[in-house]
Amino acid sequence: MTHDAAELARLDRAHIIHPYLPGSATERVVMTEGSGCRLTDSEGRGYLDATGGLWLAQVGHGREDLADVAHEQMKKLEYFTSFWEFSNDRAIALAARLAGIAPDPLNHVYFTSGGSEGNEAAIKMARYYHHRRGDTDRTWILARSKAYHGIGYGGGSATGFPLYHEGFAPMMPHVSHLTPPWPYRSDLYGGEASTPEQVTDFLIRELEERIAEIGPDKIAAMIGEPIMGVGGMLVPPADYWPRVREVLDRHGILLIFDEVVTAYGRVGQWFAAQHFGVTPDIIVTAKGITSGYVPLGALLVADRVAEVLLRDHGFPMGYTYNGHPVATAVALANLDIIEKEGLLGRATSMGAFLHAELQAQLGDLPIVGEIRSVGMMLAVELVEDRETRVPLPLDPANMPHDVIRRETGVIVRDSAHSLVLSPPLIMTEAEAKEAASALRGVLERTAPTGEIRGA
Amino acid sequence: MTHDAAELARLDRAHIIHPYLPGSATERVVMTEGSGCRLTDSEGRGYLDATGGLWLAQVGHGREDLADVAHEQMKKLEYFTSFWEFSNDRAIALAARLAGIAPDPLNHVYFTSGGSEGNEAAIKMARYYHHRRGDTDRTWILARSKAYHGIGYGGGSATGFPLYHEGFAPMMPHVSHLTPPWPYRSDLYGGEASTPEQVTDFLIRELEERIAEIGPDKIAAMIGEPIMGVGGMLVPPADYWPRVREVLDRHGILLIFDEVVTAYGRVGQWFAAQHFGVTPDIIVTAKGITSGYVPLGALLVADRVAEVLLRDHGFPMGYTYNGHPVATAVALANLDIIEKEGLLGRATSMGAFLHAELQAQLGDLPIVGEIRSVGMMLAVELVEDRETRVPLPLDPANMPHDVIRRETGVIVRDSAHSLVLSPPLIMTEAEAKEAASALRGVLERTAPTGEIRGA
Repeated sequence: MTHDAAELARLDRAHIIHPYLPGSATERVVMTEGSGCRLTDSEGRGYLDATGGLWLAQVGHGREDLADVAHEQMKKLEYFTSFWEFSNDRAIALAARLAGIAPDPLNHVYFTSGGSEGNEAAIKMARYYHHRRGDTDRTWILARSKAYHGIGYGGGSATGFPLYHEGFAPMMPHVSHLTPPWPYRSDLYGGEASTPEQVTDFLIRELEERIAEIGPDKIAAMIGEPIMGVGGMLVPPADYWPRVREVLDRHGILLIFDEVVTAYGRVGQWFAAQHFGVTPDIIVTAKGITSGYVPLGALLVADRVAEVLLRDHGFPMGYTYNGHPVATAVALANLDIIEKEGLLGRATSMGAFLHAELQAQLGDLPIVGEIRSVGMMLAVELVEDRETRVPLPLDPANMPHDVIRRETGVIVRDSAHSLVLSPPLIMTEAEAKEAASALRGVLERTAPTGEIRGA
Repeated sequence: MTHDAAELARLDRAHIIHPYLPGSATERVVMTEGSGCRLTDSEGRGYLDATGGLWLAQVGHGREDLADVAHEQMKKLEYFTSFWEFSNDRAIALAARLAGIAPDPLNHVYFTSGGSEGNEAAIKMARYYHHRRGDTDRTWILARSKAYHGIGYGGGSATGFPLYHEGFAPMMPHVSHLTPPWPYRSDLYGGEASTPEQVTDFLIRELEERIAEIGPDKIAAMIGEPIMGVGGMLVPPADYWPRVREVLDRHGILLIFDEVVTAYGRVGQWFAAQHFGVTPDIIVTAKGITSGYVPLGALLVADRVAEVLLRDHGFPMGYTYNGHPVATAVALANLDIIEKEGLLGRATSMGAFLHAELQAQLGDLPIVGEIRSVGMMLAVELVEDRETRVPLPLDPANMPHDVIRRETGVIVRDSAHSLVLSPPLIMTEAEAKEAASALRGVLERTAPTGEIRGA
């Protein structure tokens, strides 16, 4: 370790509270440079970023074209508020562009600085919509176990993991969690569901029953990630969202898609809503909108909802950086790149290539239960036993993704007993092969006990 | 209006949901350029920004030095996650710098993308701190009426205005609101408080009673803006925070300062905590940390709290953009500018100059009840009658701040019957005079009925 690297690590330990990192952990990976899918740390070591940061680096790292746009805009107008009647030309151009790529009738845009803010806003919008229309009892939010909707108290209450509630309670009331769609885990459905359609049948029955229990006229909205990310890249059966939408419509309940992970090309379309052929009332986005170059989020809101929010004194909430000129300028340029470089199509084709590579390299390993993907979201589910599908035991000191990173420099993510990959959409075939082979090198030494030989 | 300006306004109305703007409002002010304290809109009209955007443009608009820093960093490393063991050199340098300027023992930094995220995190930290120590019943949060703590469901519940709760409920439980310190409104204190010390006596008595009511062992923290911003720039008596701190300490209750508005020079010190000579356990910051050039927030956390948060599996929450390399690089350069250009001292001296100008121009007007300031936070409280101190009636179609902006191009903010000024700290004496004189021009035509002659 160089002198500088040691000093950086020391200062980090002394002064930074990292999310999800115990004080007892001394290891630090201090990134200093990035280009395309590659990263370099303070010790000069190279990495292959197969997670796209946190599912967001659609166009890859260190792009000069985006840096130039930010530079120009920052010199011209770095910030002014977009509260009240104030606006700026970049935010307007982005809003018009988003309305153009979003499914009709989602023609209205509400800006945030990220996904957590977005989910707070979406829950407030849903409740406010009903409140303004006189349905003041419609306050309940339906969500799912294993959902991740950020860590504000609203979205965090909709999040469906005990870890995100323990010690933080009381959470926001009036949230009810349903079973997630996860066909691989048929035990979730009483062991009866052996086809995707049977999984959906179970979940729709549960949804109807839950609505009846709470009372349909007490429910504001259902919120869901079209494909559950943090839960482990859980892909619902094809008929799940269309049937959910039908039930909700019948009861006057709004549908919110949390597309913070799935939007802007990740699944091969601008929005996963298009992938599933379902149009929600609100889509929450962030991450890929700027590929992470500047924090930004945007909610896409259907005409009928926006019309109600804009009544009377309007929608009474706003984040400081709402419509930030630099963030929106960079987002516009980022969407241009996605379009010009054909990254929607590339997410599908390169996702299929990477899937095939993973299948070829890992398909024979007994601890690999399932490999699944939609576009450039991929997961390798690890099990102790392929027949029983019991999850692979994990040793916190030697997690497979940590060993893969330490040994090979390939960065993948651990999500609930799956290794998740969400690389930049510009990944090359050679990089895809490198990632798959890094997984092979570690997983072939991983015993059903979770022990990794030689690690 | 030019063709472009008309088209921008049309697209804005068609696609953007602005915070606090009804759909019936057709006026738009579309900013396109900024430099120093000056802004230009799409019609080529110039403005004097006496609000610093939303209290944040400490170093002024359109600074090339900050744009250059962002440009360089974005080309080098625009983003990687700071979750788990990952970090980056810019975030580390900023964390060390913040620990250096913050009051001891606030040596630990937790990054966010803004103030709302920060207050969600602060409330979670406070509850988690007690939870981890076995005080699992310490879940209550004390806040104040007229407080503004952002619009997440946590901070939004601590926010003390009915507007921010109506239609969004149920809010997060276990929040209790106290009376705000606002010496000008002695009626808030049963009419008995005629000196600042008596105001504090009243508030401390109320605080003690509330703690006894809820039960001291059920309270996690008290959260407060050292000077209440959105509430109308309410400055507490000098002994308020020291005495509050003493009561809280006696009951094991943490103190959170929401310094989203007051930090980084606004009040003539790095933090208002230093102005009041009180050290809280957590300081929430954002806004001025980058002067708004890139969204960023940072919590400063005391050693004893951080030590508990870092136990076991660490602190289990994180925002995507945590420790964003471009945001933190820009923040470092921004703090350099504040230091090199002596903006802490300038906030005090120029704030005093602007205060004196306001006093000279407005002091004789019967509708001006009080002019108050701390550094570059100033408020002009408008009343119907100086004796009774009844607030000036306001006509939503002709609010004084709107008329001032339309007639003179000077932008000030309306906050609860006060005109609030929070200009860039680089404001010149000529600009201060211009702002004061713009206020004079409109307020001298404003009748005690709120009607503005000729507007």
